[in-house]
Amino acid sequence: MRALRFNAPFDVTCVEADEPVVRDSRDAIIDVAATCVCGSDLWAFRGENERKPGSLTGHECVGEVVQVGADVRDIRVGDFVVVPFLASCGSCVLCRAGQLQSCVVAAEAGVFSTQAAQAQRVRAPFADGSLVVVPGGRPAEALLPHLLALSDVMGTGYHAAVSARVQPGDTVAVVGDGAVGLCGVVASTMLGAKRIIMLSRHVDRQNIARAFGATDIVSERGDEATASVRELTHGLGADAVLECVGTAQSMSTAFDIARPGATIGFVGLPHDVDVPVGRMFRHNIGLAGGVAPTRKYTPQLVAAVLSGSITPGDVFDLKLSLEELPQGYVEMNERRAIKAWATP
Amino acid sequence: MRALRFNAPFDVTCVEADEPVVRDSRDAIIDVAATCVCGSDLWAFRGENERKPGSLTGHECVGEVVQVGADVRDIRVGDFVVVPFLASCGSCVLCRAGQLQSCVVAAEAGVFSTQAAQAQRVRAPFADGSLVVVPGGRPAEALLPHLLALSDVMGTGYHAAVSARVQPGDTVAVVGDGAVGLCGVVASTMLGAKRIIMLSRHVDRQNIARAFGATDIVSERGDEATASVRELTHGLGADAVLECVGTAQSMSTAFDIARPGATIGFVGLPHDVDVPVGRMFRHNIGLAGGVAPTRKYTPQLVAAVLSGSITPGDVFDLKLSLEELPQGYVEMNERRAIKAWATP
Repeated sequence: MRALRFNAPFDVTCVEADEPVVRDSRDAIIDVAATCVCGSDLWAFRGENERKPGSLTGHECVGEVVQVGADVRDIRVGDFVVVPFLASCGSCVLCRAGQLQSCVVAAEAGVFSTQAAQAQRVRAPFADGSLVVVPGGRPAEALLPHLLALSDVMGTGYHAAVSARVQPGDTVAVVGDGAVGLCGVVASTMLGAKRIIMLSRHVDRQNIARAFGATDIVSERGDEATASVRELTHGLGADAVLECVGTAQSMSTAFDIARPGATIGFVGLPHDVDVPVGRMFRHNIGLAGGVAPTRKYTPQLVAAVLSGSITPGDVFDLKLSLEELPQGYVEMNERRAIKAWATP
Repeated sequence: MRALRFNAPFDVTCVEADEPVVRDSRDAIIDVAATCVCGSDLWAFRGENERKPGSLTGHECVGEVVQVGADVRDIRVGDFVVVPFLASCGSCVLCRAGQLQSCVVAAEAGVFSTQAAQAQRVRAPFADGSLVVVPGGRPAEALLPHLLALSDVMGTGYHAAVSARVQPGDTVAVVGDGAVGLCGVVASTMLGAKRIIMLSRHVDRQNIARAFGATDIVSERGDEATASVRELTHGLGADAVLECVGTAQSMSTAFDIARPGATIGFVGLPHDVDVPVGRMFRHNIGLAGGVAPTRKYTPQLVAAVLSGSITPGDVFDLKLSLEELPQGYVEMNERRAIKAWATP
């Protein structure tokens, strides 16, 4: 089969690779219908996170189950499934508490996420606990990108909004106009936000944000962005802030635009971030979130996609073949594309 | 009148001072029935926080209203009131949102807290927004310490528990066996915690914690404390953690003993604290709390004291005259007393 391989920083290629096999009795093998490149793939692509040369890449896909291990009970061959980026057993004490990102069983097995999903076929660990069946079988092609978005970015954006405790009527600010931030706009509308302020300097992303429900766009950065958000919020700041980047500057901006009593929902992997604990203390600003247990939200998000009430796949602005998908890394890294996908 | 004055680090004396007067039309003058020394007074006492030499001290008291400014509507002469340490107007947009610690009107007026409350009489700013009337007038002497505790420590402990999102059935861990931490135990019982683990090395404080509802005592510190809490919680950590100290070590311990998905409610003024944002991210551990808007909780806490269902004044283990109260600073600083009070 064909699959993407990381050779070295700035060097990802589509290669011929071995077919995946069931290694653990809880695995399933998926025939990939659609896969994509994640913002987090770019950290390794740029050499900022370590990655083993020769490893196959990708952790987001949807597809059809073609084989299951002996201990898989709920997932069946022929099911069309969303594969969450995170693997979780679904039945340990932490999974039952909704803390799938800290699944005890997966940690013991040394498994964190699905891997090698930018491929024609992929092995998904902990099938029963991780995969979500799309009712009705393989969906219409037009629905594929929207379901694919549930594999990571839409669930992660939703987790940002839930973690930020977005309430009906709230004014929400979203820091980060990547796919996750844009999905955070969708999530904020689902949770009843009245006003959604998107911080974005890119017209194409601003347009998607507006289409997703953003009511205001702030195109400045740093102190000027803070001033603009405050101006839009009677000098107070936003009721809830979604931090969807993970850099020192984005986190700093998130705290600056949060009103007293707000919670910052953070889902961007933190890189050299300082938490301003003094400001948190003085103004009772909370920080919550982290690695998103997206599978918790997937069933309701699948229903919302199938009903047509959300279209999170609109974040995909570059459709490629699997062979061309390495170019998606380049386009995303140079910010010419928001998110690239392929139908292997 | 007699009042306590800060002269220099380690030098607080009881002196003759001018009677307080109404300076702002929203002020009230209180004849102090009971006052006390706060853990936060000790930071300045030790010279670790700056304080103006010659300033009168204290921010916790209960007493009778003897005069009100022209614009005070709800508070009347003769009312017996709990004076929260924090002053808030009660009607600005942030007060209405429950964020009294960030009151816009008090900030504009340059007022943060009641001051000079270790005295026979005190001026309380923003009387209508800040003071809470005790129904039935001056209470029995035996109730005085319990109502006095509502001026700060019990409300602050309650805020820690609310911020940590303590739910019925939870296992709660409390870091800090000072008056606030002990009151955090009371608060956790009020919120329905099933199990309350108090970290304390002092037998007298352990005994109060047990009387307040703590089910387990961990007397180790640092890594050993973490190991003990994990052992008590099936290796997972506590569902909610109350951080009631504010040092680097206490905050570090709080994060170490929090289970994935837990929230740390922090109310100890942070001193050189590092927030382990990587651990927060990996395990979805939240941080919330800060300066406690105690007045929000005071009415329900007054009712609980009057009904006898809570006795937070049991944290006072040293009763002195106002003239002797400077010695209370010494005893508390040397950890021979938990909390000293006086009835001027």
